[in-house]
Amino acid sequence: MKRLIAAAGLLIFTLAASASAAPLSLGDLLTRSPAADWRPLDPENTVYMDLPSGRVVIELAPAFAPNHVANIKALIRSGYFDDSAIVRVQDNYVAQWSAPEGRRITAGHDTLKAEFDRPIGREPFARLADPDTYAPVVGFSGGFPAARDPRRRRTWLTHCYGMVGAGRDDSADSGGGKELYAVIGQSPRNLDRNVTLVGRVVQGMELLSSLRRGPGEMGFYTNPADHTAIRRVRLAADVPAADRLPLEALRTDSATFKALVQSRRFRKEGWYKYSPGRIGVCNVPLPVRAAH
Amino acid sequence: MKRLIAAAGLLIFTLAASASAAPLSLGDLLTRSPAADWRPLDPENTVYMDLPSGRVVIELAPAFAPNHVANIKALIRSGYFDDSAIVRVQDNYVAQWSAPEGRRITAGHDTLKAEFDRPIGREPFARLADPDTYAPVVGFSGGFPAARDPRRRRTWLTHCYGMVGAGRDDSADSGGGKELYAVIGQSPRNLDRNVTLVGRVVQGMELLSSLRRGPGEMGFYTNPADHTAIRRVRLAADVPAADRLPLEALRTDSATFKALVQSRRFRKEGWYKYSPGRIGVCNVPLPVRAAH
Repeated sequence: MKRLIAAAGLLIFTLAASASAAPLSLGDLLTRSPAADWRPLDPENTVYMDLPSGRVVIELAPAFAPNHVANIKALIRSGYFDDSAIVRVQDNYVAQWSAPEGRRITAGHDTLKAEFDRPIGREPFARLADPDTYAPVVGFSGGFPAARDPRRRRTWLTHCYGMVGAGRDDSADSGGGKELYAVIGQSPRNLDRNVTLVGRVVQGMELLSSLRRGPGEMGFYTNPADHTAIRRVRLAADVPAADRLPLEALRTDSATFKALVQSRRFRKEGWYKYSPGRIGVCNVPLPVRAAH
Repeated sequence: MKRLIAAAGLLIFTLAASASAAPLSLGDLLTRSPAADWRPLDPENTVYMDLPSGRVVIELAPAFAPNHVANIKALIRSGYFDDSAIVRVQDNYVAQWSAPEGRRITAGHDTLKAEFDRPIGREPFARLADPDTYAPVVGFSGGFPAARDPRRRRTWLTHCYGMVGAGRDDSADSGGGKELYAVIGQSPRNLDRNVTLVGRVVQGMELLSSLRRGPGEMGFYTNPADHTAIRRVRLAADVPAADRLPLEALRTDSATFKALVQSRRFRKEGWYKYSPGRIGVCNVPLPVRAAH
């Protein structure tokens, strides 16, 4: 079988001084990276969403959406999302899920004030020097793709593939986390600062992205029988330690991540004939792996 | 059912002078557009690829890849793609298809000289003023997303969602059209000028993007039984006229398209609380509809 088109980065050169250094696979780069360049996912901010096809793991982003994340955790712990379902899958856009129609909340809030952006503070921020269509400055903060407006001193998460947001009605403050969606196509960056992003799918994206698209308006299923059941939703912290997935994420403020970004700007693999010398904020992989 | 998050542009304001103009849906904008703003797909450059789940329609781009397009047409007409299959689906990257292993070609060429880019000529080009991460200039040419380097006087198609390219091995000239792929995720713009793009899926993308991801390296299926069969591949020109799909595409050099782009830069729907005033070349919809 011919290779045909390169995978999303199988080979990168070492960044060693030697010009004749042999290509080092991305896997090798990560394997050789120091343990300190990785961080375990925090069980208190890790969600397990179990579908019939497998588990979707979401890392929550309390640094950007503290109130929404607290509310989602309260909803999860009260069983609000039990027997919920994926009710909408719109091609090149989002997969969206919610509790059964009419379910009342027993903990947390029905709606919350929007957390579209927030003041730039002490959160880490690994700036990407490359130009972005939508924001003055882009980069990565605590494992999430993010943007900044230095003039207005505001920061926000960006709608890249796999990001999870809190759906809302026309009012900015009509969301809160009762309905959530994940981005399954080209980054809809026009949604930045219009929706409160609450986290990112770090495992199992393919279970959401490969769902049959809904035939109705905006990708809603017209027949509830076509919904994908969500068996249960739990926080990793509420699962016995022995049953947790031992996942760890590459720190976006690490030297390894810096090397990874650079290797994506300048592709050294023999397959590449041209390297743009640039990389988009939504084109940088954010590795998550089973802890060693 | 709450609306929650806006569809990919259901409502836009008219561009009429009246500031109090009622919102006009994108559908309405297109319906009211003059017939001259649309062009029928050329049957000689339209491919029907029939899967068990339905038909995928691809518009070829002879203006950008004349030799590859001619070769693909020769391959199709010689039956080369009969009983071919989708052999690779890599999440957030590509779906790729090819003829059964070992099939020999009876028409056309096995490989071709790369057509990664070409001299800027007289082809139409609707420039997008918005900044792009990867190219000096981006825009649309003949219905396709494209880029230009004015200094070097070169132009090329860009890897947006739905674009179709000719897979190749390590050698630049090892492609030719025997294996093709479609982009099913975030635009992998690092592939621009590294692969010959040959066209775009204009209908049926959801049939490719929702396929189960391959479990093997780079998304290849490890079990051929998991391949998706491609029943037949034909050029629309070779189908009796009465059986052709009467599709037409919005001209990317039309006033309606210009209005569409502007309506995406500045979202006027009540749902939007913030408008970036910018749009990415891979975020602009390229409407195709059944001819009136």
